[in-house]
Amino acid sequence: MKRATLTLACAAATSAAVAGTVTSDGPDLVIKTRGGLAVETADGRYGFELGGRIQTDYNAYDGAINKAEGKSGSDLFFRRARIELEGHAEAWRYQMSYNLTESGSIDQVHVTYAGFGPLAEITVGQQKEDFGLEDTGSSKWITAVERSLPANAFDTGHNIGVKLHGASDLLTYSLGLYREGIDADYDLDEAFTGRLVIRPWRSGGDLLHLGAGFTDRRGASADYNARLGVRGGEEGDNVNRVRARLAGASGDERDYNLELAAIRGPFHLLAEWFDGEIDVDESPLDLEADGYAVQAGWVVTGERRQYKYENGTLDKIKPAGERGAVELFARFDRLDVVNPPPAALTGGVAETLTLGVNWYPTALVKLSLDYVDVDVDEPIGGEGGGDAIAARLQFAF
Amino acid sequence: MKRATLTLACAAATSAAVAGTVTSDGPDLVIKTRGGLAVETADGRYGFELGGRIQTDYNAYDGAINKAEGKSGSDLFFRRARIELEGHAEAWRYQMSYNLTESGSIDQVHVTYAGFGPLAEITVGQQKEDFGLEDTGSSKWITAVERSLPANAFDTGHNIGVKLHGASDLLTYSLGLYREGIDADYDLDEAFTGRLVIRPWRSGGDLLHLGAGFTDRRGASADYNARLGVRGGEEGDNVNRVRARLAGASGDERDYNLELAAIRGPFHLLAEWFDGEIDVDESPLDLEADGYAVQAGWVVTGERRQYKYENGTLDKIKPAGERGAVELFARFDRLDVVNPPPAALTGGVAETLTLGVNWYPTALVKLSLDYVDVDVDEPIGGEGGGDAIAARLQFAF
Amino acid sequence: MKRATLTLACAAATSAAVAGTVTSDGPDLVIKTRGGLAVETADGRYGFELGGRIQTDYNAYDGAINKAEGKSGSDLFFRRARIELEGHAEAWRYQMSYNLTESGSIDQVHVTYAGFGPLAEITVGQQKEDFGLEDTGSSKWITAVERSLPANAFDTGHNIGVKLHGASDLLTYSLGLYREGIDADYDLDEAFTGRLVIRPWRSGGDLLHLGAGFTDRRGASADYNARLGVRGGEEGDNVNRVRARLAGASGDERDYNLELAAIRGPFHLLAEWFDGEIDVDESPLDLEADGYAVQAGWVVTGERRQYKYENGTLDKIKPAGERGAVELFARFDRLDVVNPPPAALTGGVAETLTLGVNWYPTALVKLSLDYVDVDVDEPIGGEGGGDAIAARLQFAF
Repeated sequence: MKRATLTLACAAATSAAVAGTVTSDGPDLVIKTRGGLAVETADGRYGFELGGRIQTDYNAYDGAINKAEGKSGSDLFFRRARIELEGHAEAWRYQMSYNLTESGSIDQVHVTYAGFGPLAEITVGQQKEDFGLEDTGSSKWITAVERSLPANAFDTGHNIGVKLHGASDLLTYSLGLYREGIDADYDLDEAFTGRLVIRPWRSGGDLLHLGAGFTDRRGASADYNARLGVRGGEEGDNVNRVRARLAGASGDERDYNLELAAIRGPFHLLAEWFDGEIDVDESPLDLEADGYAVQAGWVVTGERRQYKYENGTLDKIKPAGERGAVELFARFDRLDVVNPPPAALTGGVAETLTLGVNWYPTALVKLSLDYVDVDVDEPIGGEGGGDAIAARLQFAF
Repeated sequence: MKRATLTLACAAATSAAVAGTVTSDGPDLVIKTRGGLAVETADGRYGFELGGRIQTDYNAYDGAINKAEGKSGSDLFFRRARIELEGHAEAWRYQMSYNLTESGSIDQVHVTYAGFGPLAEITVGQQKEDFGLEDTGSSKWITAVERSLPANAFDTGHNIGVKLHGASDLLTYSLGLYREGIDADYDLDEAFTGRLVIRPWRSGGDLLHLGAGFTDRRGASADYNARLGVRGGEEGDNVNRVRARLAGASGDERDYNLELAAIRGPFHLLAEWFDGEIDVDESPLDLEADGYAVQAGWVVTGERRQYKYENGTLDKIKPAGERGAVELFARFDRLDVVNPPPAALTGGVAETLTLGVNWYPTALVKLSLDYVDVDVDEPIGGEGGGDAIAARLQFAF
Repeated sequence: MKRATLTLACAAATSAAVAGTVTSDGPDLVIKTRGGLAVETADGRYGFELGGRIQTDYNAYDGAINKAEGKSGSDLFFRRARIELEGHAEAWRYQMSYNLTESGSIDQVHVTYAGFGPLAEITVGQQKEDFGLEDTGSSKWITAVERSLPANAFDTGHNIGVKLHGASDLLTYSLGLYREGIDADYDLDEAFTGRLVIRPWRSGGDLLHLGAGFTDRRGASADYNARLGVRGGEEGDNVNRVRARLAGASGDERDYNLELAAIRGPFHLLAEWFDGEIDVDESPLDLEADGYAVQAGWVVTGERRQYKYENGTLDKIKPAGERGAVELFARFDRLDVVNPPPAALTGGVAETLTLGVNWYPTALVKLSLDYVDVDVDEPIGGEGGGDAIAARLQFAF
């Protein structure tokens, strides 16, 4: 308790000779700053929040990863730099997240109607489609510096659409219709995406998460690909990819995934499996891809990884002590892309092993260091694999 | 009244055990959130406000509207997504409005000196030129999803310049000099634009608005054009336009307009007329255009459309009841563009009839549904007209 | 003192019938607005600030300055329009500054760890390299509308990197490693930059500043250049430059500078000297450049120019009286760029004399008017010099 008596409270208001009063012209307000800013009416009916994220990465890599054959590569770059606004007014809320990098772009901008309760919210605008566990979770709180190979290859991106979604203690679901693009007649190509998560066991913060999802896309680009374990740098064309692509073509894409996650005290386990096929338009060809990722993490300092019921994802680690929280993890993932000639094929199967440590000195800061070992079954530039280091300084307010 | 007595007021300040005090290090402050944020000193000398607008549109259209002949088109897209800052410090104020769409651009950024009083303010920076009633008003509170054909064809856009402007109960005026572009010698081409509005009758919120404006532009692009009643989508080239253009040429442009508006209880009436000519440089050719729009609206739930004296425009509708406000409207408009060969000519005369309904469930949210019927006198792609649906979800905070 | 008694303080809190309370859900907060917004916990451990700058310039110029031979040029444009966020949480702080002009770009985004105290802070991200007195200082508080010719030619720009820096009353230093670019093998090219400033004499706000700096850059563009005293306009290619360049080439660059500044009451003196060389890769050629600037200023209304110990730079002028502060200044600068054939050479030596006046009507607003006289030793387009006027309206909140 900060103020013991009425006298003290009023004395405090006059404590500094220069202090002025702060009032609201309407309902009572509560304000907070933890590096960003949040203001909310005491009754919770209206609110505004301003935040952001800064991720500065250093990557160094060799072998099959770097496009320059026989050379090692490196870069220091912004992986993400975003300003984020959100607010709510009665049953409506909005979110605006803007990428400052590469001359600016919309990350997410959407409006939600929550008047039917938490089991049936409707979100309209550019948003996550909610396909895959790591892809649905925030890039602030993924465990490794980069998401897994299949999470990258099957990422649906952020698209404009309409999503019906809801969550209870037991389950989280979403079902949406999105803009995949425009066809040659200038007519909308849709993507239809759904996900269901159940949590059959919950005890304290511990839980078991089981999920499944699908996405069905018209006019999708005929392309399954992923970078080899690291981003590579701010220029997109400096690292190789494992990729199945029919350049310039599009088709009907159907992807499925299964998710498993468990949190028990300072330990977490995560596994995802993906499988998909693109039926190329005006061509007898199909592109196929499948892959999986398995990850285990241990917060050495004892904190529990949080979980976000709203969208069914693993969330942040809040350091408890003065020295912050330290997390160790290992991940193995594999992506297999298959396509017959004449599609351009680069490396049919890629596997990475990632070992890493994350230090959260405060709730807002995360320092990451990952070692990544890559293997590809079809040598790229004469090399069957490579190594990489990925380091990140993240400030999320 | 929120607090009855001194005792209660101070008790409230200590109500929550964890509540901290909030004070100012200078003058008294008043804070407000309605989804955005506003802070102002109690004496009104300093202030800051953060807001924005999100407009997510769905358009579907056929016939002469879609560029793909004989096909219907559709798109789901952000019509506008903006972050808006404004503030004031003594006699000076600023406004910054930034478009998040299409990799970001300045919508408006300007600084105003108001030290001579409300009848003679000076605004420097990128701003509206104030030409035309719908074009001068905010895109948040136009009645139809899109402004009329002539409002589009004669829109001066937002340009960098210096504007002298002022308003009283009786009149609103503005007179400015703007940057139209740079000529071949890298010398500034200016636009000179003025507008005068008088309100000869006012009674409560009811009023009669009469206005006239002109713009005189050097180095203007030799082009009068408007899309056919709907935006079409996020890609600009999917819909046809009624257009008179001499590609690559520029000239001296002179445009005039007349405005009439009336608000009486839940009803409003709006009419505008435009006429202009571009005297093409180094050519005997002139481009000519004229057009008009007539619109009538009725707020079925009884609210009155507001009016903004500051810039002489129709403004928002604030819902009074729990169910929000509902508005019905009809608009007829016509644009006629004329040019002799060899100018590229697409459809000399276009007319649209727009019927629509707007629902304002809260003061921040607007849902619109318009039906648009288009006629063109010179068939485009063999079609003399078309139909369109335009729907919008708007959140303005 | 704003409130005399306990009774008044509490009465004030209930003064307006509609006034609501404003509290914090954690530590006590202090809020401030001076056009922007600042919120900080009373203990200083957390804070957030939102500001920005708007600079609208008018330039008019003739002779050798304008690229159109024998013609005068002019433009009205945003020199800078930025939104700036900063915040801090315990030992960590961040800054995000975003350019709204030219479709948006990151000006500065960085995170600082200050846990080792003010003598050894570490900043990671896109930041100033701190090379040169005018270049290290804020563009808000430079004296002339544009920095000197050598300050432009030797500007290291804002780059991603890691900087160790610190300041005491006596000295300010910085030492950093930055990303200059990526080489043909996709490997990082580094720049290593350092600066040391000492203030051997300080008395009240008066002081003497002596500084030196160096920068050593791999993969630097083979280009020393500066515009001729004015920006010219929003399109970059309308004004000539004094320039030594080997188009498309890069090399190892080494630059040095010396700084001297003095503030005594309303007077300030500033002098900088630069010298550098680029050893072009795979070529026997070297590019060389040197230059200096000398500036004297007098605040006629008596205010003292402030000084920022943190980064060792001249800072703002805060007007004391109702009419604001008025500053007069003169600057002479010279840039000499030398390169043998076949490098493209435009004007080997340029000199400008700049006379100007700045009016600060309030702490947030600055109006500038400069006259610039340019001489070049090798005529450009047949002209050995030119004149320019540069005017600016700045609002910085």
